[in-house]
Amino acid sequence: MTTTVDARSASGTSTLDLGPARALSCRECGHQIPLAAEFACSECFGPLEVAYDFGRIRREDIEAGPKSIWRYRGLLPVPTDVQSHPNTEPGLTRLVRAERLGAALGLRNLWVKDDTGNPTHSFKDRVVAVALAAARKLGFTVLACPSTGNLANAVAAAAARAGWESVVLIPSSLERAKILTTAVYDGALIAVEGNYDDVNRLATQLAAEHEDWAFVNVNVRPYYAEGSKTLAYEVAEQLGWRLPGQIVVPVASGSQLTKVDKGFRELGELGLVEASPYKVFGAQATGCSPVSSAYKAGTDVVTPVRPDTIARSLAIGAPADGPYVLDTVRRTGGAVEDVTDEEVVAGIRLLARTEGIFAETAGGVTVATAKKLAESGKLDPDAETVLLITGDGLKTLDAVADQVGPRATVPPSAEAVIEALGR
Amino acid sequence: MTTTVDARSASGTSTLDLGPARALSCRECGHQIPLAAEFACSECFGPLEVAYDFGRIRREDIEAGPKSIWRYRGLLPVPTDVQSHPNTEPGLTRLVRAERLGAALGLRNLWVKDDTGNPTHSFKDRVVAVALAAARKLGFTVLACPSTGNLANAVAAAAARAGWESVVLIPSSLERAKILTTAVYDGALIAVEGNYDDVNRLATQLAAEHEDWAFVNVNVRPYYAEGSKTLAYEVAEQLGWRLPGQIVVPVASGSQLTKVDKGFRELGELGLVEASPYKVFGAQATGCSPVSSAYKAGTDVVTPVRPDTIARSLAIGAPADGPYVLDTVRRTGGAVEDVTDEEVVAGIRLLARTEGIFAETAGGVTVATAKKLAESGKLDPDAETVLLITGDGLKTLDAVADQVGPRATVPPSAEAVIEALGR
Repeated sequence: MTTTVDARSASGTSTLDLGPARALSCRECGHQIPLAAEFACSECFGPLEVAYDFGRIRREDIEAGPKSIWRYRGLLPVPTDVQSHPNTEPGLTRLVRAERLGAALGLRNLWVKDDTGNPTHSFKDRVVAVALAAARKLGFTVLACPSTGNLANAVAAAAARAGWESVVLIPSSLERAKILTTAVYDGALIAVEGNYDDVNRLATQLAAEHEDWAFVNVNVRPYYAEGSKTLAYEVAEQLGWRLPGQIVVPVASGSQLTKVDKGFRELGELGLVEASPYKVFGAQATGCSPVSSAYKAGTDVVTPVRPDTIARSLAIGAPADGPYVLDTVRRTGGAVEDVTDEEVVAGIRLLARTEGIFAETAGGVTVATAKKLAESGKLDPDAETVLLITGDGLKTLDAVADQVGPRATVPPSAEAVIEALGR
Repeated sequence: MTTTVDARSASGTSTLDLGPARALSCRECGHQIPLAAEFACSECFGPLEVAYDFGRIRREDIEAGPKSIWRYRGLLPVPTDVQSHPNTEPGLTRLVRAERLGAALGLRNLWVKDDTGNPTHSFKDRVVAVALAAARKLGFTVLACPSTGNLANAVAAAAARAGWESVVLIPSSLERAKILTTAVYDGALIAVEGNYDDVNRLATQLAAEHEDWAFVNVNVRPYYAEGSKTLAYEVAEQLGWRLPGQIVVPVASGSQLTKVDKGFRELGELGLVEASPYKVFGAQATGCSPVSSAYKAGTDVVTPVRPDTIARSLAIGAPADGPYVLDTVRRTGGAVEDVTDEEVVAGIRLLARTEGIFAETAGGVTVATAKKLAESGKLDPDAETVLLITGDGLKTLDAVADQVGPRATVPPSAEAVIEALGR
């Protein structure tokens, strides 16, 4: 099912089985290099991404595969024997028919992809699992990242499962809950006196100095990012091997949105689905909306901002893939929109009330953005529409803490309960 | 695949499609009544459970079914068309090969069933989904429960998804996080000034007075409890249609343990697996260990206790199914064991460190009990062994809060990070 190719690593002569992955290719100048732990083009410093030689891939083989992202291993830069090493087995999360949310939004054919069911309850388990599988093959022995939340959880958990050391760098001001949910996996969690930018800079420096450390979102980023394609594969398979007409994706670095588009295109090119047209929409919080601003201004230039939003998992002020998001959205006929923090909380509550899914703030951004896009007529109310819910409300309880609580507090009597219910 | 039978409800002449369910049968005296919203035997006040007429059930039909507990609808008291009504679609959670945990425990063939992947991150989504499906058919319109945590989340979420009203009764002293994670679904959450016993009594009274309220764990309990069988079905299917040699199950009311056993037996009787012998082990926290105490005393009488343990989701001092747990454990050659709160926390940390799975306190009870049973030789180190992890650590952060944290807090320099790591 997968094609194994020879490739020479940057360091010399090793043969690298990363499944169908053939080379790293510069997204700017197209220059190609052999598969290696590189992330920037040696010619133009553009970002590298994985290029493939896919063999013949059949729906039946995928359907007969494991109930995790590894059913798509023939489409990912992971070894053919990826399943023989311990990893977190994320994916194949629920695609939920959302009639009640659809009625509230005026969308008559709506689905929610609920990625809170992953091992550490966010889509980051997908990208980290792919990064770990590739990193093992690339010769790394330590899994690392700078993070403020979901990624820290995912890296620490995956490393624990694999028996690897992990190094997770966080700003020392991080909330207690996020520290605990990372520290419990017992890797090396280091709190850095500084903000996320400081932590990020440190990670880049450490990645350069320690050749056995795989910083998932730095020096193995080309492999890591491919993990997001699995969201597209699953949506299409779960719809019955069909592309949706519209999809709304939250935008942080922008990588996820571009990879969902890449995944849809690959499925069409491989004949696994009919290559029907689809529109990709991006969702941002107004307090960190550089891509939405660029989209609305009609420009290709994404001007960095200083984030100020409760949607902290999307708060990347200088999104690396912002220009590619603009390309994708414009090419497919979508749009980028942004919503206020008040709308974010209302979006979280609307999704919970109508579908029983409790999303983190990023999910509130997606739902609220879909609402805005539907109201403005940019989303077709009759097209098959998918919203990506990429993280869990349990991790961002503060967002709703002021707004929800018991209907009433009553003495222990049936009459008091009935009275409180107004029945 | 499922057999639809006619049944008359207690109220008269309605025909009830609850799939293969045929009647309610008293677990004490065997008296049978038609399917209805009853939970106690009219002859002897014993607990009622669902009796079935299974049609022919084939592995292939199950395997071709939905990727949720509804693939087993032919084995559950739910309507044949259960999938045509919105519900939470729990189940088919990961069964993880646990080599690293196994090495730590001295168990050479160990699996972990990770039920944190359910919609609200505990096994309660299974039982509530079955209760909702049956309750709809039984004519109820409100989903309700008394709860201190996981059940509250599951009921509020399932009702939201279905568009039903919910009434969730909690002690007013409940932790803020558990209130938020229930209230966000916007049902009627009522805080009662009293302890869980007060809340439970209120629920029984309200269930008697309001015939349209389905208290999932009171008046529709016989249907609700069957949902736990799906844990057994999934374990067997995920092992390749085979029963494990040993399984360790946490004990609260004891219902889950008895239903896991029932599920294994049904699979054998239906020829879906070879009816090979297996041992069922129960796990309790020492601070609430009435069943373990009875087991060790060699008696059939479970003496109620006042719970005092951090494993609050298991803290039922008078477990309704305690005697049935003793029967099951003794019949299969298993045991019941209990562990201290310190051991519970160590169990949570051991599972996280070795397998990247962050369990709630009940999971810590299961792991720590398995450790104790392995050390005492009661668990065969070579038998295929499954541990049930039924809830998520994100909901019981306080259990580990004093014990885990960053390795170090350092200034933003690479040297400081390296020094902190001792490398």
